[in-house]
Amino acid sequence: MSELNPPVVDFAPDRWGNPAHAVTLPDSLQATLDGLGIHPVATPVAPEDVVLPGSAVPQETREALAGVVGAAYVSEDAIDRLRHTRGWSTPDILKMRAGDASDAPDLVLRPGDHDEVVEVLRVCSDARVAVVPYSGGTSVVGGLAPEREGFDGVVALDLQRLDGLAALDPVSRTATLRAGTRGPRAEELLQADGFTLGHFPQSYEGASIGGYAAARSAGQSSAGYGRFDDMVVGLVVATPRGTLTLGTAPRSATGPDLRQLLLGSEGIFGVITSVTVRVRPVPSVRVFEGWRFASFDDGAQAVRRLAQDGPLPTVLRLSDEVETALNLADPASAGSGSAGCLAITGYEGEPTEVEARRAAASAVLEECGGVALGEEAGEKWRVGRFHGPYLRDPLLDAGAFVETLETATFWSNVGPLKQAVTEAVQAALLAYELPSLVMCHISHVYETGASLYFTVACPQRPEALAQWESAKAAANAAIRASGAAISHHHGVGRDHRETYAEEIGPLGTEVLRAVKSTLDPAGILNPGVLVTR
Amino acid sequence: MSELNPPVVDFAPDRWGNPAHAVTLPDSLQATLDGLGIHPVATPVAPEDVVLPGSAVPQETREALAGVVGAAYVSEDAIDRLRHTRGWSTPDILKMRAGDASDAPDLVLRPGDHDEVVEVLRVCSDARVAVVPYSGGTSVVGGLAPEREGFDGVVALDLQRLDGLAALDPVSRTATLRAGTRGPRAEELLQADGFTLGHFPQSYEGASIGGYAAARSAGQSSAGYGRFDDMVVGLVVATPRGTLTLGTAPRSATGPDLRQLLLGSEGIFGVITSVTVRVRPVPSVRVFEGWRFASFDDGAQAVRRLAQDGPLPTVLRLSDEVETALNLADPASAGSGSAGCLAITGYEGEPTEVEARRAAASAVLEECGGVALGEEAGEKWRVGRFHGPYLRDPLLDAGAFVETLETATFWSNVGPLKQAVTEAVQAALLAYELPSLVMCHISHVYETGASLYFTVACPQRPEALAQWESAKAAANAAIRASGAAISHHHGVGRDHRETYAEEIGPLGTEVLRAVKSTLDPAGILNPGVLVTR
Repeated sequence: MSELNPPVVDFAPDRWGNPAHAVTLPDSLQATLDGLGIHPVATPVAPEDVVLPGSAVPQETREALAGVVGAAYVSEDAIDRLRHTRGWSTPDILKMRAGDASDAPDLVLRPGDHDEVVEVLRVCSDARVAVVPYSGGTSVVGGLAPEREGFDGVVALDLQRLDGLAALDPVSRTATLRAGTRGPRAEELLQADGFTLGHFPQSYEGASIGGYAAARSAGQSSAGYGRFDDMVVGLVVATPRGTLTLGTAPRSATGPDLRQLLLGSEGIFGVITSVTVRVRPVPSVRVFEGWRFASFDDGAQAVRRLAQDGPLPTVLRLSDEVETALNLADPASAGSGSAGCLAITGYEGEPTEVEARRAAASAVLEECGGVALGEEAGEKWRVGRFHGPYLRDPLLDAGAFVETLETATFWSNVGPLKQAVTEAVQAALLAYELPSLVMCHISHVYETGASLYFTVACPQRPEALAQWESAKAAANAAIRASGAAISHHHGVGRDHRETYAEEIGPLGTEVLRAVKSTLDPAGILNPGVLVTR
Repeated sequence: MSELNPPVVDFAPDRWGNPAHAVTLPDSLQATLDGLGIHPVATPVAPEDVVLPGSAVPQETREALAGVVGAAYVSEDAIDRLRHTRGWSTPDILKMRAGDASDAPDLVLRPGDHDEVVEVLRVCSDARVAVVPYSGGTSVVGGLAPEREGFDGVVALDLQRLDGLAALDPVSRTATLRAGTRGPRAEELLQADGFTLGHFPQSYEGASIGGYAAARSAGQSSAGYGRFDDMVVGLVVATPRGTLTLGTAPRSATGPDLRQLLLGSEGIFGVITSVTVRVRPVPSVRVFEGWRFASFDDGAQAVRRLAQDGPLPTVLRLSDEVETALNLADPASAGSGSAGCLAITGYEGEPTEVEARRAAASAVLEECGGVALGEEAGEKWRVGRFHGPYLRDPLLDAGAFVETLETATFWSNVGPLKQAVTEAVQAALLAYELPSLVMCHISHVYETGASLYFTVACPQRPEALAQWESAKAAANAAIRASGAAISHHHGVGRDHRETYAEEIGPLGTEVLRAVKSTLDPAGILNPGVLVTR
C-alpha cells in the first residue's frame, strides 16, 4: 500500500490536495466544454498577490500565546495565514481565486502537545480571541471560517505538531494517534507494526485523525472497515475548562456515550488532541472489480441486498447513469464514460475468506442483473480514487463550475430523495439560465439505508457563488422535505447549520448550546460553526 | 420461537420475573448449601402485609394528572405501588422481603400516548412532583428509586399502554415500536411480519423497548445482532420542554449523534416513547453448541480470535471454571456442573451461511484447544437461558446471598480485571467472615474487548445489605482502578453513579447536568439517578 503513504506536503491555499498530483483536462472533457460554449471567466489571483487584512490579535495576547507554544510556533506569515483560510469546497476555492482573504486567521499557532492546547484555550478564553482548530484543513462545508464579531481576533490552531502514534495495543487491536496525524502518515506508522486503520476518505491525502473524529468522516472502505466513528474507542479533548478523557471500554452502559457527543462536534466543544482507534491487521489480499447494471434502481437493489443479507464487500459503490457516462472520477479518461451504471466492489482480507466472500457477493450481484466487468475496471477506480477531485481545478480554469453535496436516508427513500435533490438543483440553476449535469452515487451502505453523493456541474458565471448558494439552498430544502440527513460525512460547518437546526429541532439545538456553554463558556471555539451563536 | 412469546403477565413485587416460571432448589444445590452450613435467616414479609407510606402528591395535582391520563389510569392501589417500587437487584428484592416500601411511588400513572406523556411532564414540572419513567421495571442498579427530597411526591410513569408496533418499513428493515412494548410482545408482532429484533437480554420476559434504549441493553445474541444501541435508528422523546425527535438516517455527519445522548440517559433527560429499530428477517436455522476449554485463558483467546478475525457466531459466551462447575445457569441441574470452562456458540441465519460460519468458527475454536460438546449442551443453555435468575429466589429463601455485577474492558485487560474484581469482592466479604464463590463469564465480545459478568454467592447474614454494599464498593474500586467501565449493560442507576462520576470526570458530569437542565429545568425526571443532584 505504498501509494497510500506519500510524504507530508504543504498544500496550496487555492486548490485541492497535493500540488504534485495536479492534473490537466483530458481532451475528451475539453471537447465537451467547448461544445457547451464553456470558456474561462476570470484569471485567478495568485496567492502571493492576495492582500491580507491586518492581524487583530492584541500584542499582549500574542506574547502570552508565544509564551505557551514558543515564539517559533506563532506565525503571521501571509502564505501561512492564507493556507489556514477556509477549506476545500468550491465556494472556498472560488473566493480564494478571487483574492478574498477576509476570513484569514490573524495568527497560526502550532502547539506541541495536549497541555499546550489546554493552555492556549485558557489564554484565548481570557483574551476573547476565537480559536479555529485546524488539523487537515479539508472542510468542504465552511467548517473553518469563524465569525469574528465580538472577538479580539482569530487564531488558527494547527495541530500538525501533535503527530504520530502514541500507543499501540496489539492484543486489543487499538492504537492511540495524535490528532494532527494525517491519513497517510497514520497508515505508515500502523503498517510498520502490521496494522491498518482502513480509513480512506476522499480527503485522505490532507485530512488528519482529529478531523476524522471531529467531522465524523466516512471512508471509501466503510462497508468493510466501518465509518471513522465506528473505529473510535477513546478520545482526549482539550477544552477551555480542562481535559475530557473518554472511552473506558469498547462499549458500555455507563450513561450516554459521550464519545458520540464529541464526535461530530466540529471543534465547538473542544479540541480533540488524540484518538484511540480500533485497528486491523494489514490485509494480505486486495481485489477490486467493476460491475455494470442496466439502471440505478437495479444497482441500488443489488447493493441493498448485499448490505442487508450480506456478504458485504470491503468497498461497495454504485454510480448512476450520468456519473457513469461522464466518468469524472478518472482524470485520465473523464468525459468518455460508458452506458448503464457502474458499481465498484472491493474485497480485502485473507485469501480464503476474500475468495469466499467475493464469490458469494458476485452471485448476488449477478442475480440482481449485474454484469461483471472484471478487475481492470475495479483496479482503475482504486488507483485513481484520490485523483478525481483534482479535476476541479482545471475545470474551474476552463470556466466550468463543479461542486458536490451529499446526504443519507433509509432505503425506501433512496429513489425519491435522489430524484428530489436532482430536480431541485437543476430547477434552481435553470432559474439563472444555467443548464446543469447532476450525477449521483451511493458511496456508503448500511442495513437500513445509504448515503447519496451528488456532483453538480454547470457553466461558471461571474455570479457563480450566489448561483450556487441558491442551488445548494434548494438541495437542502429537498433533503429536509424528504426527511433525510443534511450530511452523511461532509459535516455541518457553517454551510449546513440552518438546515441542521431544522433537523435536530429547537430542543436539540438548545442541548448543543448548553454543552458548549459548559465546556467553552467564553464561546471562543469555532464560533458560528454547527450552531448559530 | 414460540417460547419467546409468552403472554403478558403481572410480575410479583418481590421476586425475579414471571411467577409462573418460579423454580425450586435442585437437591444437588441444597446439599451444597447444607454442607456449607447455610440455613434460612428470615421469613420474608408477604407483599400484602407490607405497609406503604401515605401518598404525598397533593390532591390538586392528582386531579390535574387524572385530567391528562383519565382517572382510570391513576392508581393508588397498594400492590400496584409496590410493583413499581425499585427493581430486580438482590438489594431491591431483600428490601422488599424485609417489608421496606419506603421507595414506593405515591401514584402509578399509565398515560395512553406520547402527547399525554408530554402533558404529564408539564403538570409534574409545575407541581414539582418527581417522575420515574417505568417500562419493564427490571433495573438491577437502583434505576427506579428516586430521591424524594424537594418534591411534592413521586409518580411512577408506567408506559405499558404505549404498546405495539407503530410502523414497519420492510424495504429499509426498520420498525417503530412504542416504548412500553415488552420484549416477547415485540418479537410476536415483528415475527408476524417475518422479522425479528434479535434482542434477548436476561430480563427479556420483563424488560421493554423503552428500557432497552434508556439503559443501553445488550442481549445474549449481541455477537450476531448487535447491542440494542446498535439497533436504534430513531427515537421520540417526551421531555418537560416538549418533544425531541431524533434519527433522520442510519448514520450521518450531522453533528454529535444526539441519539447516543438519549440512549443510556436512564430517564433523566426525558421519557423515550417510541424507538425505531433495525429489524432482520426471522432466521430459518438456529444451531447452538457447547465447547469445553481447559482454562479460562484458553477460552478467552478463542473467543477473542473469533471476535477479531471472525467468523462471529450469533451467540458467543465463555464461563470460567467456577461458573462451569457450579452451573447456576441451569436450575434443573445447578450445583452439579463440570470441569474446565464451558463456552456456548449459537448460529442463526440461512442454512448455507450458518453451516459455513459454523464450520469456520469451529475450526478456530478447535485450533485454540476447544473440545466440541455437541448440540445438546448448547440447546440446554438456549432452552434454559431465561431461567437461571429464577434460582435466586429459592437461594435467598435457603439463606444464601447471590448477586451479579458486570463490567467491560479492552482485551489486554480482561485477565487482570477478572482477577482484580474477584479478589476485591472476596476480600471485602472475608472481612465479614463470609466465604464466597465468585464466578465469571464473558457474555459480549467486540473486536477490541469484551464484557465480564460476575456472579457472587455467599451465606446470607441479617446484615447482608451492608455487607454487599462493602463488597460492591470494592468491586467498583477495582473496576475503576483497572480503567474499565463501571457497567457493560446493567447501567448506572443510583448504585453506580459515584463510580460513574469518576469514570467520566467532573467535566463529563457537568455536561450531563447541563443537558438535564435544558430538557428538565425543574429536575423532576428520575432525580438522583445517573448523576447526583
